[in-house]
Amino acid sequence: MSTSSNPVLVEVLRGDTVESRHSGALALVDADGHVVCTLGDVERPIFPRSAVKVLQALPLVASGAAERFALTDAELSIACASHSGEPAHVATAQAMLNKLGLDESALECGTQWPGREPVLRGMLSRGEQASALHNNCSGKHAGFVCVACQMALAQGREPAEFASGYVAPEHPLMREITAALSAASGRDLERAPRGTDGCSIPTFALPLRDLALAFARVGTGQGLSPAHAQAALRLRQAVAAEPFYVAGTERFDTVLMQALGERLFCKVGAEGVYCAALPELGLGLALKIDDGQVRGAECAMATAAQALLKDLSPAAAALLARYSDLPLHNWRGIQVGAVRASAELRRGLLGVV
Amino acid sequence: MSTSSNPVLVEVLRGDTVESRHSGALALVDADGHVVCTLGDVERPIFPRSAVKVLQALPLVASGAAERFALTDAELSIACASHSGEPAHVATAQAMLNKLGLDESALECGTQWPGREPVLRGMLSRGEQASALHNNCSGKHAGFVCVACQMALAQGREPAEFASGYVAPEHPLMREITAALSAASGRDLERAPRGTDGCSIPTFALPLRDLALAFARVGTGQGLSPAHAQAALRLRQAVAAEPFYVAGTERFDTVLMQALGERLFCKVGAEGVYCAALPELGLGLALKIDDGQVRGAECAMATAAQALLKDLSPAAAALLARYSDLPLHNWRGIQVGAVRASAELRRGLLGVV
Repeated sequence: MSTSSNPVLVEVLRGDTVESRHSGALALVDADGHVVCTLGDVERPIFPRSAVKVLQALPLVASGAAERFALTDAELSIACASHSGEPAHVATAQAMLNKLGLDESALECGTQWPGREPVLRGMLSRGEQASALHNNCSGKHAGFVCVACQMALAQGREPAEFASGYVAPEHPLMREITAALSAASGRDLERAPRGTDGCSIPTFALPLRDLALAFARVGTGQGLSPAHAQAALRLRQAVAAEPFYVAGTERFDTVLMQALGERLFCKVGAEGVYCAALPELGLGLALKIDDGQVRGAECAMATAAQALLKDLSPAAAALLARYSDLPLHNWRGIQVGAVRASAELRRGLLGVV
Repeated sequence: MSTSSNPVLVEVLRGDTVESRHSGALALVDADGHVVCTLGDVERPIFPRSAVKVLQALPLVASGAAERFALTDAELSIACASHSGEPAHVATAQAMLNKLGLDESALECGTQWPGREPVLRGMLSRGEQASALHNNCSGKHAGFVCVACQMALAQGREPAEFASGYVAPEHPLMREITAALSAASGRDLERAPRGTDGCSIPTFALPLRDLALAFARVGTGQGLSPAHAQAALRLRQAVAAEPFYVAGTERFDTVLMQALGERLFCKVGAEGVYCAALPELGLGLALKIDDGQVRGAECAMATAAQALLKDLSPAAAALLARYSDLPLHNWRGIQVGAVRASAELRRGLLGVV
């Protein structure tokens, strides 16, 4: 029987009763590839989706594009982002394109309305239209276009023409992005299962163990080329300095990194994925909720950070405690339940560090 | 290890690779309580949430309230509904209250913005505010208030005063609603796990087997009191005549019952629940996706209807085929995957009827 053999990591309660369950798997790996902790099947390939944007942004710094176009911390942060389409996000992605002499028509991520509801409501009430700049991936794509311009200029080619069609797997830019992901994870992506991501670029399925290794490398620099190691450090520092740009107002990644600074780099991916680097521990983390729900992934990520990071500030401790046991309210504001870490997840993380 | 022991019922594909999995359980039971088919654990209590609205509406007809207030098919349909807050839904719930000399202030379900995005966008662009009438449960609550008025008039009491506080478990109205659910399912709800629903009324956790039995009874009348049997028939006919009101434009329950008429009564519940009556087979169905996602529940429901109902019209067959293998598209409209029934779900339903 093809049951889901992964353990329940997160439970959703209504009153005192478990109403829904999120099973999943989690890997904690050091930069030498030693597996420190696993829960569930960490060898089955999963699509990391947006959780690996920082890996896809390594060429932005390593190629010299970030320096050539004088990208700011906010611009580097948004290049690693799944943002909420807030005005500052849109302006920042636009500013990156302006530095290239391009506009939003260069973006191939598609149009998406802002994820943040008050922003969406405001736009609708003013009769405004969404564009590719509002797409949660617009910063990543603006970063891609920066790299494409850098590559074009190095080859004496016209940047906009060179960049055109950059989302295709065989485009030189996308080959460069894929090579960065492959180098960090140590996985030959030519042989990996491939799909098309929400923003139209290829996405590759990798084992959680390899993803955790990639993030241990991002956190330590170990096992990366010198250029990629420097790029990883620069990107982590930029996100820590400007965490608003990697997600947005009231978003989990933003509030977590606002509270923890460079102690944690974490990034959500669609369909229940989280990847994180914990530099002070030399560890990388990757988790996937089998059913793809973000509420399960956020709760598991918060619980892992709570278990692994010591000497938290009271504010950071309170934040992690809240997200690992998040109250749920109904239409009248009555608390009706909670999303909380399972005993098995808590046990599995006990004594790891 | 507390693994989820239920089988995978639905898979989400990206390209050719399974990206996410929805495990769950399903029970098919006849009106005598014989279990015809089960997948997974059908004895564990689950909260049916809105899937049992037709059971909660039995007193609306059985009490004589529907007749006294001359409720139309649309009004009876919306009393069983989780609607999308479209203008016709709002007007219909309002009309029910008007027949009682009351307005939306009688509703205790809380304010919710319409679930249908174009309706929401239209309201926002016109600067309109949502009210309790837009809440997906407003029709059910308007039905509750009808029953409360009927009870008040029978006792010579003032209706609005009697109805006040009707969402409380101990209110005479809610006792009547709970008694109907208890009688249909054969389950003593005093001993059942209890929570508070999104619309503030109590919700009770019952085994899928008991829920399936209740829906076999709704489909056949067998095992219900004569008044409840007649009420069940009246409500099923009303929903079949006016399926728009039980959900809304492009909603799964609406399109399914538009295509199948009285051959199927089905109703979604929050957190991945479906209940259905298949009168021609004398069967009731109940299913729960462990993780609570509606995409899994809809796919499983479509697959069950496809397997169980014979001699479908080409349109109905095409609809069920589509929902049991639903294409997924990205922001640029490229097909990137699908939500499809697992081989195990299909096998489990083979040869049942």
